[in-house]
Amino acid sequence: MDTSGKVITCKAAIAWEPGKPLSIEEVEVAPPKSHEVRVKIIATGICGTDDHVLSGSFPNVHYPVIPGHEGAGIVESIGKGVTCVKPGDKVIPLCLPQCGECESCLRSNTNCCLKTHLCAPQNLMPDKTSRFICKGKQIHHFLWISTFSEYTVMPDSTVVKIDEAAPLDKVCLFGCGFSTGYGAALNTAQVTPGSTCAIFGLGGVGLSVVMGCKAAGASQIIGIDINKDKFVKAEEVGATECLNPHDYEKPIQDVLMEKTGHGVDYAFEVVGCLDTLTAALASCHRGCGVCVMVGVPPSGSPLSFDPMLLFTGRTLKGSFIGGWKMKDSIPQLVSSYLEGKFKPDVLISHTLPFSKISEAFALVHAGKSIRIILVF
Amino acid sequence: MDTSGKVITCKAAIAWEPGKPLSIEEVEVAPPKSHEVRVKIIATGICGTDDHVLSGSFPNVHYPVIPGHEGAGIVESIGKGVTCVKPGDKVIPLCLPQCGECESCLRSNTNCCLKTHLCAPQNLMPDKTSRFICKGKQIHHFLWISTFSEYTVMPDSTVVKIDEAAPLDKVCLFGCGFSTGYGAALNTAQVTPGSTCAIFGLGGVGLSVVMGCKAAGASQIIGIDINKDKFVKAEEVGATECLNPHDYEKPIQDVLMEKTGHGVDYAFEVVGCLDTLTAALASCHRGCGVCVMVGVPPSGSPLSFDPMLLFTGRTLKGSFIGGWKMKDSIPQLVSSYLEGKFKPDVLISHTLPFSKISEAFALVHAGKSIRIILVF
Repeated sequence: MDTSGKVITCKAAIAWEPGKPLSIEEVEVAPPKSHEVRVKIIATGICGTDDHVLSGSFPNVHYPVIPGHEGAGIVESIGKGVTCVKPGDKVIPLCLPQCGECESCLRSNTNCCLKTHLCAPQNLMPDKTSRFICKGKQIHHFLWISTFSEYTVMPDSTVVKIDEAAPLDKVCLFGCGFSTGYGAALNTAQVTPGSTCAIFGLGGVGLSVVMGCKAAGASQIIGIDINKDKFVKAEEVGATECLNPHDYEKPIQDVLMEKTGHGVDYAFEVVGCLDTLTAALASCHRGCGVCVMVGVPPSGSPLSFDPMLLFTGRTLKGSFIGGWKMKDSIPQLVSSYLEGKFKPDVLISHTLPFSKISEAFALVHAGKSIRIILVF
Repeated sequence: MDTSGKVITCKAAIAWEPGKPLSIEEVEVAPPKSHEVRVKIIATGICGTDDHVLSGSFPNVHYPVIPGHEGAGIVESIGKGVTCVKPGDKVIPLCLPQCGECESCLRSNTNCCLKTHLCAPQNLMPDKTSRFICKGKQIHHFLWISTFSEYTVMPDSTVVKIDEAAPLDKVCLFGCGFSTGYGAALNTAQVTPGSTCAIFGLGGVGLSVVMGCKAAGASQIIGIDINKDKFVKAEEVGATECLNPHDYEKPIQDVLMEKTGHGVDYAFEVVGCLDTLTAALASCHRGCGVCVMVGVPPSGSPLSFDPMLLFTGRTLKGSFIGGWKMKDSIPQLVSSYLEGKFKPDVLISHTLPFSKISEAFALVHAGKSIRIILVF
């Protein structure tokens, strides 16, 4: 059936207000306008950021909203002026746009497109309207891509075609989690061969950092988590050892200093916790250590630490979706995946039908999952 | 007269306790022990760090102490085992050792020798004794070099021979101030041609940062100071414009954002003030800006800022004495100076006899000086 140009009614998960669980509803999805693309989502991951949306701690989100930003799908129809994809293409929606025109996109050294939510909220399409209606109410988009809906509309700056051989229920991870962690090691830290690394937080993104450190040739890769159930998988993907801070009386940064002699070359904070970020910074080599903030810190809370930690030569830097310019990089990452260069599949602990999204979030909260993929 | 092997009595400025002004005293300076060098100081600059010693805000200093760490002089005698210098050599004492043997010295990417004061206090010679006695009391060394004394003893890891054509009353600036600022731009930030830079604080070190940015080919160099008397000199050495935060109602970071469109590529904090450091960070390009902490922050006060400033890709890093491995670099910097590659002479606002050290500090406190050189 040709749905092009028509409103499509389908299932979506809506966060009606902060602090409330998602509810699956029937939504009406309007056709794409000029320079917009309507995508049938085949699979979507669940990321910690989606949980921040549910709790209300992600900045500048408007409710009600359809979260989800780690999807993969097939183009259903396109609006006028769209040239980058056509109906039937396999695509990954981009949680970070690459408009190709702004001051950041024209620079080689940043991926922070000025159209990102952190510059100007992406709660509505660029024309300031929504394509979603539920129960007569306008529903907001999330990061312009809202992958917790079977059909979703996005601007053409936030979607990219990928290899048609790609398994969508696996490569959806490239839309956020895997790319964020892997790129933090390769692009942001630029981990060097033979170096020592510490990764604080061994969820899906942290494990992707481990894979990036391994790919870069690090010789010592120390995983850190308070949940030791995560250690087996971490060692499987490249960690040379794992530590649980609860096993030590002294602070974990002191343990790492002793273990490595002078601190690690690279530390990655992948929890989104300010105390952990300070510990990661203090774990670095005082003269040349690089601490990368990967986790999203809680909105509105200040980071506070002794500036002398920096004075002797440490570096603290943020990694934004792994530093990738997503339109340029995601298709290449997918191709490398198809060539077997890395195996993010091991991050997938559960594949569930979309209807089980609430059970999936319960698994996330219980620390019983790595990455959960929901399939429509 | 051959003073070698004998105690030398000379003038030195002593800080008897924190919060008290310096007093010039007669001190006895013991001969150098094994791997030590006794230097006749010819000229010494006054750095903000010396003022921190007087106020008690520099960490781990023991009193009474002879401050001073930006000197130049001539080797008077050497202890056993010293091979890097001989009597009569012109030298610069190094406020940051380069022992050549520790884990940091053996790395190419840090100058943070493990013998630095910030790793293990340099209040006594390596054998844990002092070479200074005054009024029967042992006086502490400062950073092992104590250049506020006509004669001073230091380990051979903290002294380097320079070209015998070098004017000591000028090149003493290479011992700290000029090298710290110039290297922050070239080594730590690695300023790129055509970039935009903001320098917060236009004292001697800040002006040296300006010179470094200019040497690196920056196209926009914005000097910032609340004392507009400093603007003429800043523009003389390379600032393309200067701003006084007091001239604006909005925060200076907002002014810089508007002026540059998207923030500066590189921001340097050279005041040693935490609020200024946060402003410098916020002035940087959100996707790729690099903020370098050059000024020494007050001991014991936490730096506190919104971590979202980092999340989109900013970098915050410390510059330790401009990132130079001092034994390797200072002689080269002096040679470049003799070839006319840069003119740190313009930083020298006053040259005074050592006996006027108290007047010199009064000029510093009144903001009436750039760099003051004291000559013996």
